[in-house]
Amino acid sequence: MYRLCSLKIITYFCELNLNQQSCTIRRKTASDHSIILHMEHTRIKELLGSDEFGKEVIVKGWVRTFRNNQFIAINDGSSINNIQAVVDFENTEEALLKRVTTGAAIRVKGTLIESQGKGQRVEVKVNDLTILGDSDPEKFPLQPKKHSLEFLREIAHLRFRTGTFNAIFKVRNALSFAVHNFFREREFVYMHTPIITGSDAEGAGEMFRVTTLDLDNIPRTEEGKIDFKEDFFGKSTNLTVSGQLEGELAAMALGNIYTFGPTFRAENSNTTRHLAEFWMIEPEMAFYELEDNMDLAEDLLKYVIKYALDTCPEEIEFLKNRLLEEEKSKPQNERSEFDLVQKLNFVLENSFERVTYTDAIEILKRSKPNQKKQFKYLIEEWGADLQSEHERYLVEKHFKKPVILTDYPREIKSFYMKQNAPDAEGRHTVRAMDILFPGIGEMVGGSQREENLEKLLTRMAEVGIPEEEMDWFLDTRRFGSAPHSGFGVGFERLVLFTTGMTNIRDVIPFPRTPKNAEF
Amino acid sequence: MYRLCSLKIITYFCELNLNQQSCTIRRKTASDHSIILHMEHTRIKELLGSDEFGKEVIVKGWVRTFRNNQFIAINDGSSINNIQAVVDFENTEEALLKRVTTGAAIRVKGTLIESQGKGQRVEVKVNDLTILGDSDPEKFPLQPKKHSLEFLREIAHLRFRTGTFNAIFKVRNALSFAVHNFFREREFVYMHTPIITGSDAEGAGEMFRVTTLDLDNIPRTEEGKIDFKEDFFGKSTNLTVSGQLEGELAAMALGNIYTFGPTFRAENSNTTRHLAEFWMIEPEMAFYELEDNMDLAEDLLKYVIKYALDTCPEEIEFLKNRLLEEEKSKPQNERSEFDLVQKLNFVLENSFERVTYTDAIEILKRSKPNQKKQFKYLIEEWGADLQSEHERYLVEKHFKKPVILTDYPREIKSFYMKQNAPDAEGRHTVRAMDILFPGIGEMVGGSQREENLEKLLTRMAEVGIPEEEMDWFLDTRRFGSAPHSGFGVGFERLVLFTTGMTNIRDVIPFPRTPKNAEF
Repeated sequence: MYRLCSLKIITYFCELNLNQQSCTIRRKTASDHSIILHMEHTRIKELLGSDEFGKEVIVKGWVRTFRNNQFIAINDGSSINNIQAVVDFENTEEALLKRVTTGAAIRVKGTLIESQGKGQRVEVKVNDLTILGDSDPEKFPLQPKKHSLEFLREIAHLRFRTGTFNAIFKVRNALSFAVHNFFREREFVYMHTPIITGSDAEGAGEMFRVTTLDLDNIPRTEEGKIDFKEDFFGKSTNLTVSGQLEGELAAMALGNIYTFGPTFRAENSNTTRHLAEFWMIEPEMAFYELEDNMDLAEDLLKYVIKYALDTCPEEIEFLKNRLLEEEKSKPQNERSEFDLVQKLNFVLENSFERVTYTDAIEILKRSKPNQKKQFKYLIEEWGADLQSEHERYLVEKHFKKPVILTDYPREIKSFYMKQNAPDAEGRHTVRAMDILFPGIGEMVGGSQREENLEKLLTRMAEVGIPEEEMDWFLDTRRFGSAPHSGFGVGFERLVLFTTGMTNIRDVIPFPRTPKNAEF
Repeated sequence: MYRLCSLKIITYFCELNLNQQSCTIRRKTASDHSIILHMEHTRIKELLGSDEFGKEVIVKGWVRTFRNNQFIAINDGSSINNIQAVVDFENTEEALLKRVTTGAAIRVKGTLIESQGKGQRVEVKVNDLTILGDSDPEKFPLQPKKHSLEFLREIAHLRFRTGTFNAIFKVRNALSFAVHNFFREREFVYMHTPIITGSDAEGAGEMFRVTTLDLDNIPRTEEGKIDFKEDFFGKSTNLTVSGQLEGELAAMALGNIYTFGPTFRAENSNTTRHLAEFWMIEPEMAFYELEDNMDLAEDLLKYVIKYALDTCPEEIEFLKNRLLEEEKSKPQNERSEFDLVQKLNFVLENSFERVTYTDAIEILKRSKPNQKKQFKYLIEEWGADLQSEHERYLVEKHFKKPVILTDYPREIKSFYMKQNAPDAEGRHTVRAMDILFPGIGEMVGGSQREENLEKLLTRMAEVGIPEEEMDWFLDTRRFGSAPHSGFGVGFERLVLFTTGMTNIRDVIPFPRTPKNAEF
């Protein structure tokens, strides 16, 4: 199983486990944990960066291409790049060579050498070739040619084997880790808020029912109603649309917390921006006011994008080139001003523009597309809800950078947002903030929360949320209420922006959308 | 909002945002990201470690106790420890002092001084006291006395305000981060596998249905069956019981991946070890065989426990003492040999015992409780499924350390596990591994996977899993199959072990169990 360790290298130590008759080579890391350094094979990423020419190596991976009966491009997922293995075809059985097909899993033992050809620095001169698993070229759907993203979505279980999806999921992974690291540095507590919720009053959208009732034989009460007492949880339950309310409970005790987990919307939206199941990051902070909330959100977005740029340079370069290639098919005037790397750096280098809703409405009213009636929804008066076209105008045309819109009209926002004092014209606003990104629209939605029990109860009554259902939530305002704030980041939108992809179904492993829950 | 920065300290820079008329003090971190250093208030954790006596500080938090009309113990969640604020009661309005009740949120401005009293090093001499949010002492359920864990479970939304639950959720947070850091160091890709699944063939237990059908008016096909084409996803869907199968798809392209997300079992188990909704960590590795799998699992468990010990010493000390206190009510012979810290260190310092099922059965057969018929289920022959009592005997009595049991009988394990060649007696085993922990039982379940398509199909037919439903999964064996392995860690069981708690409902923020989905 394991290669024997070299006794010369004293930082390695060999742990001989007599029971198992196996020898694991481990290395003390800086953090004093032993990590497995070498299995029988070496990862391609390591080999591509190696200059130990002449060394005997073992590679395991999948065949991407096989040219001239001689050059095998092998990928093991560790890198978007393949390693080239060169076969001595004159001295290799023909039957074996025939099995070197795209998609086949192989094991290659050979010598690491400096490459003679173009396009790679190192290659492996093959001494021994083994087929681990065949791949029938008549049936394997991924051939060495460009496949459309639509086609790849249909074979989402195999698309991880393409360079594009390798890069996307590496970037997604980097962004995920960066989220956790950002909050760890600030000593936030990661809370796993519940996925199944008995509350249906969150008001953020349509919900999925969770049940174990037999749909062919639904139990009924004496009055003929569905008897949810018989359901698993003894009541009607749904999938959560947000961990915010539970997050508030934790923040009002632990100070600063965040969630990062799946959330659900049963909305029949078949767009490139919506999923029925998506991941959301929701920090909630006691004693934070709206300004602090905006600062934290801006810091978070910049931190995670910078982390992706720093740790995935090859993947982002690959995605940048993919995007440039894709844009070639567009007319000149529809192409982006910036490439992907420039776009990401632009976000890092500029402060987000902070604008009140009221100021934004004035800008939109006076805007050319409004004057020329080019907007589908014309902005006529204060109070209008902003549509995607308006958000895009503000971000992409007017300010040309991310924008934080604040202090929205109370009537178009959620009941739990802190109310401002009415303005000189008697208009009611709430301490909301939405962060809008170019090409994406709403990346973040947040607010300072209403900490005043009376105001909250009045607002709940106005919008029709029964007090008794939210009793536990209201306890935060009954016992030691205090200013607090929070926001939610749609994680897939963040991945969309950072990868330069345009369809949200391409940045989550197995997208769930109306009429689609494959794999 | 923000305190003005000291211009003397040149590593700080003041970012004056004229639009917002606010001044944020930021500091360049090592990673070159700016982080907010100071809001108006300072976190109690920082103050408790400070020796800047004479400095004016602002504290915001919740009152834990108020003694002698003079000493307020304040907690803001940043630490399990409170800071003491000393009020000049003779010069403070009585009406104000009356509002300093347990649970109230307050803001205190004062001078940091060396404490005169016992039990703390620093305290705050109060110059200004503000009540942010009252807490009616007649109604606030958490009084400064010992509450039972059962009572606290009923007010799960407030239990975060106790020292015990502060400590538990800090440790849970540390373990979560450690999981991500462990896999990042090894370049595993974090995959968000789907929560809603169209597959019901995973066979790991009872599932919850996810639906948007109107239960009062279920659509029917012409044959009178439920018409799932009308459901949101156009078919019958459930909550996932495991991300493994999707994880395998990703591993067979990206190499090494892991999941860390919620999973669900609709089992009517009302025990201290089971939840209907729990978090699971599931790594899956291409080209790993069973030995590698065991090494990785052992490394992971040791790494995360060590990380918790290193980063949460105060919390674990607190939990250790809580446990010692709890054990005082037990008879001497039922108390633990080790305290919590010793128990955790014991795991770190010893190799897990690796034993085959076949050897374990021999040990159990010859064991005293089997000979004396003290086991509820006597071990009579090879093939018996191991019960909790047997696992505990092996771990707690026989080996006295974590045990990895391998090579279980094929008939008692899942269809996807790699089959060994039959032994000399013709018995069939699979390359399974379960890691058993003292006091917990099964902490990890895993295996090398069956990579041979024919063997897998035969086994599926034997256990009645329809091939067509698993077509996407079988593609991994059709196109470039290769040895691979993986395992699952029940995250709450890991938190249970690390915190020394005994009921799994106490280590997840809002437990979901039969007839219980509160908050």
